[in-house]
Amino acid sequence: MSILVVGSVAFDSIESPAGRAERCLGGAATYFSLAASYFTDVRVIAVVGEDFTEAEEAVLLKRGVDTSGLEHAAGKSFFWAGNYLDNLNEAKTLTTELNVFETFSPKVPPQYLDSEFLFLANIDPVLQLKVRQQMPKVRMVCGDTMNYWINGHRENLLKVLPGLDALLINDTEAKLLGGGSNLLRAAEEILAMGLNSIIIKHGEYGATAFFSERSFPGQAKISHPFRAPALPLAEVIDPTGAGDSFAGGFFGYVASQPALTPEVFKRGLFYGGVMGSFAVERFGTERLQSLSREEIDARFDLFREMSHLG
Amino acid sequence: MSILVVGSVAFDSIESPAGRAERCLGGAATYFSLAASYFTDVRVIAVVGEDFTEAEEAVLLKRGVDTSGLEHAAGKSFFWAGNYLDNLNEAKTLTTELNVFETFSPKVPPQYLDSEFLFLANIDPVLQLKVRQQMPKVRMVCGDTMNYWINGHRENLLKVLPGLDALLINDTEAKLLGGGSNLLRAAEEILAMGLNSIIIKHGEYGATAFFSERSFPGQAKISHPFRAPALPLAEVIDPTGAGDSFAGGFFGYVASQPALTPEVFKRGLFYGGVMGSFAVERFGTERLQSLSREEIDARFDLFREMSHLG
Repeated sequence: MSILVVGSVAFDSIESPAGRAERCLGGAATYFSLAASYFTDVRVIAVVGEDFTEAEEAVLLKRGVDTSGLEHAAGKSFFWAGNYLDNLNEAKTLTTELNVFETFSPKVPPQYLDSEFLFLANIDPVLQLKVRQQMPKVRMVCGDTMNYWINGHRENLLKVLPGLDALLINDTEAKLLGGGSNLLRAAEEILAMGLNSIIIKHGEYGATAFFSERSFPGQAKISHPFRAPALPLAEVIDPTGAGDSFAGGFFGYVASQPALTPEVFKRGLFYGGVMGSFAVERFGTERLQSLSREEIDARFDLFREMSHLG
Repeated sequence: MSILVVGSVAFDSIESPAGRAERCLGGAATYFSLAASYFTDVRVIAVVGEDFTEAEEAVLLKRGVDTSGLEHAAGKSFFWAGNYLDNLNEAKTLTTELNVFETFSPKVPPQYLDSEFLFLANIDPVLQLKVRQQMPKVRMVCGDTMNYWINGHRENLLKVLPGLDALLINDTEAKLLGGGSNLLRAAEEILAMGLNSIIIKHGEYGATAFFSERSFPGQAKISHPFRAPALPLAEVIDPTGAGDSFAGGFFGYVASQPALTPEVFKRGLFYGGVMGSFAVERFGTERLQSLSREEIDARFDLFREMSHLG
């Protein structure tokens, strides 16, 4: 089954306590695509500039990602520079240059229209909705967002949410979107916005999924949240893209399965944590470029051992 | 099997967003004893003042706690007042009156000397060591501490740690004691201080245990951490004593089992989370006074469902 992802493909300059990396290939759609590519076919829609060369495209092609939906525009690609010197859990942004992304208007090319799964990475909710509306028959849609859209573009965001099967955001974003300081209540508020499920990511503490009666059509509601672990790591080299890699692992696994059952959803959360844990082991997407399914499944087994009673 | 706990028995005045409670029965030894009493026999050593009456003692006696080691001194009991109005995860202390606790010098009475399990709640490490030395034949010892002792009494604390099978502390305390901002590295530093195991509590995100080759004598080392969940609650009424209740659930369950195996340790962590989740549902120790083993086991099953793949 194919997942279509729409989001940013970018260059990132990153500094962390472990060192620095200049102009790595980055962007939410890149991390998502690479992570999901270990599970299923991936198609990407994004805009890149003239600085995005065959060398960068080869990174995606090598993982079998369909890049025929990449729009090449005159100018420079989206560029972000940030550091994690004060806090590994939160980037300090130094520079954001939208460049070709500023006028991005995603169009789904004909060869992508039969995609059964759709991931709306963190972009303007107006664009998310535009893509969603071009894919009326898609089987499952997941999405991401961030404080900037929650605070300043809430009305537009609220039009996107009812079209999502699952929203993946972090604790801070969930409390901002749902209101208040209690995570369970915030999750309930967000579910009431029309989503089927919400996945809240806690960084090094894992992630929790909250379900509604719409989460698994035709099946009984799961009456409790589900919590998946994260891997305690001795060193986080570069946290950039961890959330998008989580989303790629989750949704890639789900898309590879014949049906969305509670068990598939839960295993997806474990695979999400697994791909997030790999992503942060090297700068940029380096680690995600050269994994094997055996390494991934070995870490999945470790996540199970780390969290399961006998 | 009997657990002996030494720590504070106190009165607490607490304010939280849910309301306020004046002079509740509290103290680490009280929360620990009540939580552990659902699993095994508990004996308590503490000092109380003249304001600690038969009514307070009845709370412990009703749960079968052996209070013959309570020292009744002239003066007032330890008193603490604090609030959680700004932050449910961290109390703001308004008043601490040590009162009779100031000159507390715990002595293990003869009828307690055959206790097989010992819990050293958060008190001066000099006193912890003093009790530890009176119990040379004890099978397993767990302990707690806090920032105050880690910062200001580190040398004394480092004399206690090698006598512990497991230390139970929270993230902040672990990073302070072990150094640095990485939890895994901090845990490894702390294990190198001579402990067998360390349990780091993450509040609403659960707890992680880290093991050494000494954790399970005669058995292979568990080469990875183990993570137990916590229960997302719609309302935390009063977080006071959650950590001590966690410790009581963990150690109470462990003490009730024939041997300390990895599986027993892991289940103990789940029971710790269960008892912590009950403790915060009411002010003070109210919820811990009136549980049933059926309620506890039902929540244990929920914790398993919340975290286990099929």
